Amino acid sequence: MAKDKKMVTAITSMDEDFAQWYTDICKKAELVEYTSVKGCMVIRPYGYAVWENIQRILDKMFKETGHENVCMPMFIPESLLQKEKDHVEGFAPEVAWVTHGGNEKLEERMCVRPTSETLFCEHYANIVHSYRDLPKLYNQWVSVVRWEKTTRPFLRSREFLWQEGHTIHATAEEAVEETERMLNVYAQFCEDALAMPVVKGKKTESDKFAGAVSTYAIEALMHDGKALQAGTSHYFGDGFAKAFDIEYTDKENKRVFPHQTSWGVTTRLIGAVIMTHGDNNGLVLPPAVAPVQAVIIPVAQHKEGVLEKANELYSRLKAAGLRVKLDDTDNSPGWKFAEYEMKGVPIRIEIGPKDIEADQCVIASRWNGEKSVVSLGELESAAEKKLQEAHDGMYAKALANQENRTYACTTMDEIVKTLEEKGDGFIKAMWCGEEACEDEVKEKTGVGSRCIPFEQEMLSDVCVCCGKPAKHMVYWGKAY
Amino acid sequence: MAKDKKMVTAITSMDEDFAQWYTDICKKAELVEYTSVKGCMVIRPYGYAVWENIQRILDKMFKETGHENVCMPMFIPESLLQKEKDHVEGFAPEVAWVTHGGNEKLEERMCVRPTSETLFCEHYANIVHSYRDLPKLYNQWVSVVRWEKTTRPFLRSREFLWQEGHTIHATAEEAVEETERMLNVYAQFCEDALAMPVVKGKKTESDKFAGAVSTYAIEALMHDGKALQAGTSHYFGDGFAKAFDIEYTDKENKRVFPHQTSWGVTTRLIGAVIMTHGDNNGLVLPPAVAPVQAVIIPVAQHKEGVLEKANELYSRLKAAGLRVKLDDTDNSPGWKFAEYEMKGVPIRIEIGPKDIEADQCVIASRWNGEKSVVSLGELESAAEKKLQEAHDGMYAKALANQENRTYACTTMDEIVKTLEEKGDGFIKAMWCGEEACEDEVKEKTGVGSRCIPFEQEMLSDVCVCCGKPAKHMVYWGKAY
Repeated sequence: MAKDKKMVTAITSMDEDFAQWYTDICKKAELVEYTSVKGCMVIRPYGYAVWENIQRILDKMFKETGHENVCMPMFIPESLLQKEKDHVEGFAPEVAWVTHGGNEKLEERMCVRPTSETLFCEHYANIVHSYRDLPKLYNQWVSVVRWEKTTRPFLRSREFLWQEGHTIHATAEEAVEETERMLNVYAQFCEDALAMPVVKGKKTESDKFAGAVSTYAIEALMHDGKALQAGTSHYFGDGFAKAFDIEYTDKENKRVFPHQTSWGVTTRLIGAVIMTHGDNNGLVLPPAVAPVQAVIIPVAQHKEGVLEKANELYSRLKAAGLRVKLDDTDNSPGWKFAEYEMKGVPIRIEIGPKDIEADQCVIASRWNGEKSVVSLGELESAAEKKLQEAHDGMYAKALANQENRTYACTTMDEIVKTLEEKGDGFIKAMWCGEEACEDEVKEKTGVGSRCIPFEQEMLSDVCVCCGKPAKHMVYWGKAY
Repeated sequence: MAKDKKMVTAITSMDEDFAQWYTDICKKAELVEYTSVKGCMVIRPYGYAVWENIQRILDKMFKETGHENVCMPMFIPESLLQKEKDHVEGFAPEVAWVTHGGNEKLEERMCVRPTSETLFCEHYANIVHSYRDLPKLYNQWVSVVRWEKTTRPFLRSREFLWQEGHTIHATAEEAVEETERMLNVYAQFCEDALAMPVVKGKKTESDKFAGAVSTYAIEALMHDGKALQAGTSHYFGDGFAKAFDIEYTDKENKRVFPHQTSWGVTTRLIGAVIMTHGDNNGLVLPPAVAPVQAVIIPVAQHKEGVLEKANELYSRLKAAGLRVKLDDTDNSPGWKFAEYEMKGVPIRIEIGPKDIEADQCVIASRWNGEKSVVSLGELESAAEKKLQEAHDGMYAKALANQENRTYACTTMDEIVKTLEEKGDGFIKAMWCGEEACEDEVKEKTGVGSRCIPFEQEMLSDVCVCCGKPAKHMVYWGKAY
């Protein structure tokens, strides 16, 4: 039963309606499916396999930097959530409350974790007593719940998957170093595994995590010029330690409060991949996280020898360590081409009777559509080269998009005019450090502060808003 | 700061108080820690690393048998839970209810999943339309919540980690085959990875999963003679499909109900490992799931060349693919010996100045306490041999324990007398198939039916309880 090519490729153009284009890809590439649980989704096998690859690579990076995985309860008793004042104020309005167990009302209601600082703190108070117990470098892979009003697959949902690192250190210096180390791990992961350039920086005071001394973030720019916060890393100082009575005895036998951090990335990264690399034919996956890196499509597969040869190529690529799939179903090659384009498989290998005769195959690259004729003797090396080219090409293209859409502005009018003329993007502009100016920029131009980038430039001496002396250059933008 | 050996080894003897011995190991081997969330626990790095090894091995077995991972929401709306009558009756009394999101009362309350049949069914109704869509072989690794009254680490907790496989098939035959296939995967895993023999069989009607046509289980016998259900696999027929309107069009263009299965194992397996292999010095871990397979302990490490040599052995074993740790802290060797005995590390490698002079080291096996002198040239092969011996020896010992504590009985009096004289164990006895007799055996002897084993023996022609013709031989026992 050959299906019509149009059935597969019928997605909205991203130029017509970017939001609908995004939703169409999520559905048609079989990444997610809606459920009757409002604001929650099913992550389907193809979407979950992307997450498994993200997990595998990141988990290795975490372990190489000395971290261990643990698992905390999913519930937080209300009294525990309330121990740190800023933290509870930030999270209490958006948690799901469990009030009954079976038929009985609970003595104390509990929320489903929106994040687990409070649980880690309680645990650290139990197990940290001496300087010899420090540091603890813990992480967990779980889901968390935040009661969002409007939701979108991967970008904002009531339940989402993430990892949350929680570490505790003897000194502030060590904790700050950890906060920065993990931000760098995230940035490196985004570049090396997701082919996605990011801007590293510090969040402004108003944009900090509830309870943090400082929050660092990586920000990426999507196809439509909107910014997406792709990961955060928080330094807590000793505020949580004080609120949770975590103390240790140092080498001089004094009682001291330790310093903490937390850091996380979520399934949002899959949304970032869609909006960084996708096109009007569907998803385009970076080779490092693609569930299928190469799909083999036999042409005229009913002809003698074609399927045998296709199977031979499959075995060779599998032995070479590639994630490879052979599609020998009775759908037409055209339908298969469209399906794997939609699913963003990095390379497609076509093999038919004429190719076999000439001892060659065709490799088509998803990211730029290029086709190459490859001698079968060089299959493995050619496939690996195409995957490397895909990664490099995708990164370069995304970086060019980000650079082309980053605009330096020195006046409020210039910001407004730039956004009108060029569309959304990163605005670089100076800031005095006052929250009032941050608010005014947002109100008058529509862009909020994304971060104070580590790489500072002196675009002007004065704040873009009030004209007083500038303290920082800030990246501003509309955000997901 | 050398710690006292007694500090580490102070656990209750299993002969004195088995339950306390179990709890002591959970704490002292740093597997879990209690929290203020009643009935829930922190799984600490060492315990979680055991679970990660279990996951890695099982996940590979699932994928090799064609299964894909997905992720469903953690919440189930009450109306969805109620769709299958037996299922809701079984689970509703023991679920946690979410009634509020932020400050607002929900229109419909939702439970935290106790198991996810209902969510998978809703999803299957959305994506299964034609025989071409079948089978779907899905699995997820998540945590679930059941509001238990009394809890114990790993064995029974309000939240626990598990995997739940959910599959849907065109025919009853295929689904039954799948149910049996996954039970065999579990049994093979328990034997090959956990060195734990199991009895495979079918549950009686009264002991089936809520909503199942039939439930299969693997049952293991613990040190104290009690049985532990280590995994289950359920065949649902088309009952769920009918309740959730899942229909597909078959090759003859008829509308047909598909057939389903589900199967799961949990962190309970860690409890099973503790109670199958542990001893009065602590945990004894099977090499396949041990976070550390070999620990290297330098003796007189302040002496010249000792730490260098210890590091060399570490590098060699790591390169050979072992999970190895070198403990070069300033605790005394005696303290370290006790610590890694408590933690159940399969082999300990001792290396001191005299060993270095003689170009040898000492390998001590945790499971039987044997020490061997090994030439350094044969380090890798000797370590691997010791690990294999540990697995084989632990399996043989556990099997002998199971066989020695399995008693064939033909009368009720014999059951009572056997339990009195020999203590707890598996009782093999014939059964007529009537629930009344099952209940009466339990009431009068204290042992319940564990399963109807696939390997049947004809111990007698008549039911051990009523004397009517026997239908099955049943394994009976007290259970965790």
